[in-house]
Amino acid sequence: MNKEKLTVIKIGGNVIDNSENLHNFLEDFHALPGFKILVHGGGKVATDLAKSLGIEATMVEGRRVTDIEMLRIVTMVYAGLINKNMVAQLQARGCNAIGLSGADGNVIKAQKRPVKDVDYGFVGDLHDDSVATGTLESLLRAGLVPVCCAITHDGDSQLLNTNADTIASAVAVAMSPVFDTSLVYCFEKKGVLRDVNDDDSVVREIRAEEFEQLKQDGTVAGGMIPKLHNAFEAIRKGVEAVYIGKADELPALHAARFGTRMAR
Amino acid sequence: MNKEKLTVIKIGGNVIDNSENLHNFLEDFHALPGFKILVHGGGKVATDLAKSLGIEATMVEGRRVTDIEMLRIVTMVYAGLINKNMVAQLQARGCNAIGLSGADGNVIKAQKRPVKDVDYGFVGDLHDDSVATGTLESLLRAGLVPVCCAITHDGDSQLLNTNADTIASAVAVAMSPVFDTSLVYCFEKKGVLRDVNDDDSVVREIRAEEFEQLKQDGTVAGGMIPKLHNAFEAIRKGVEAVYIGKADELPALHAARFGTRMAR
Repeated sequence: MNKEKLTVIKIGGNVIDNSENLHNFLEDFHALPGFKILVHGGGKVATDLAKSLGIEATMVEGRRVTDIEMLRIVTMVYAGLINKNMVAQLQARGCNAIGLSGADGNVIKAQKRPVKDVDYGFVGDLHDDSVATGTLESLLRAGLVPVCCAITHDGDSQLLNTNADTIASAVAVAMSPVFDTSLVYCFEKKGVLRDVNDDDSVVREIRAEEFEQLKQDGTVAGGMIPKLHNAFEAIRKGVEAVYIGKADELPALHAARFGTRMAR
Repeated sequence: MNKEKLTVIKIGGNVIDNSENLHNFLEDFHALPGFKILVHGGGKVATDLAKSLGIEATMVEGRRVTDIEMLRIVTMVYAGLINKNMVAQLQARGCNAIGLSGADGNVIKAQKRPVKDVDYGFVGDLHDDSVATGTLESLLRAGLVPVCCAITHDGDSQLLNTNADTIASAVAVAMSPVFDTSLVYCFEKKGVLRDVNDDDSVVREIRAEEFEQLKQDGTVAGGMIPKLHNAFEAIRKGVEAVYIGKADELPALHAARFGTRMAR
């Protein structure tokens, strides 16, 4: 294939909540060659702000319900405070970042999750046509680096709180016809570990056909199963490779020594 | 001149704080033909949020001082809550809006106001090279409608609170070499009034050479003097015309029946 390379990277609270981790990550992100898109989650700032305002987080079956008050808070914190500070820090390094919610340029349109047993409130689910590939491509080709927060919209004025992992995956899938796209999930471990007690027992590569075997022998268990399932889904839909590893090892990505690589 | 038309419109609290006013304004803004950029101020949401969090607004000589706590609040409210809701509402009307702080795409770089007698805190002043004309032009030509909030950055990671009138004027001036640019200030009156007690006594047009005369005969007095002074400064620097009038009369803009028009 002769397509240009694009890397979509997702970071979560473990990077965002610690200013030194974030500083180092943004340094490494800036150094990454080729086209790139950053997707970030929330971290604990939103929870702290809600607490300061006396707003209780409503949980149903272990999942946060986004009522109208909580939506206001995550919009302020994710799209405002975190996104703009991250963009300003990237600009200081000479990286021409542009912060985006899903409403901006209509880049990510979602639908409010239907109410079944649980009403999750203002939470957005993505569908196959959620991502505006052309607009993101225009921004990339104008020399801009999109930094997407986990707020989307429904196309009918309503902002929606949306899972950042899901956004990263949908963006990578949608960009795959245009770019040779890799998707990188930064999380708290160095990758899929052969031995959970040994941080250095990283499984370097998992092919689609090996996934079943690794589930059966217990190498992939618990919360890792849905993560890897989603990774192979993204690959099935056109993403070249999905990496899962620790943010501070990002510089090793292009030497193929970053975390666990999943591929076709 | 053969340049394409661009309209830069600034709205403030009197439009933003009232959801019906905002709804109507966004409807009219969407209907406006040609390239356009929206610049919005803050409104009272930031003050209300500060109050809820027990943060006192510090005032020095009638001007709000932006300490680090207040900067966090205005970043959340202006760049997050207000900007993203406005963008989502424009998207719902089919207007491909993209919300921007000055850090996004480095579109507006400011410098922290130097401390003289008063330390205004994290307040940004603009200079001649503040606006990234090329990036704004790229966005416009990609079919996007920039919606700028009153948060800028210093290029060294620091976000700064910046006057929205000043941003609108700097953007209009910077875009003038590329577009035939009009600058529109929406405020609470229908324009410059010949008789302050008669809302319909709008002076339709003021030429640069008439400004002195209108100051002398008292038609332009008080807070209108600096407003008009800034308008003529923008015209001197290349803006085609500056309009000042009431947001709800925006549809009359292209029939030249909107507020007071200032021109060379």
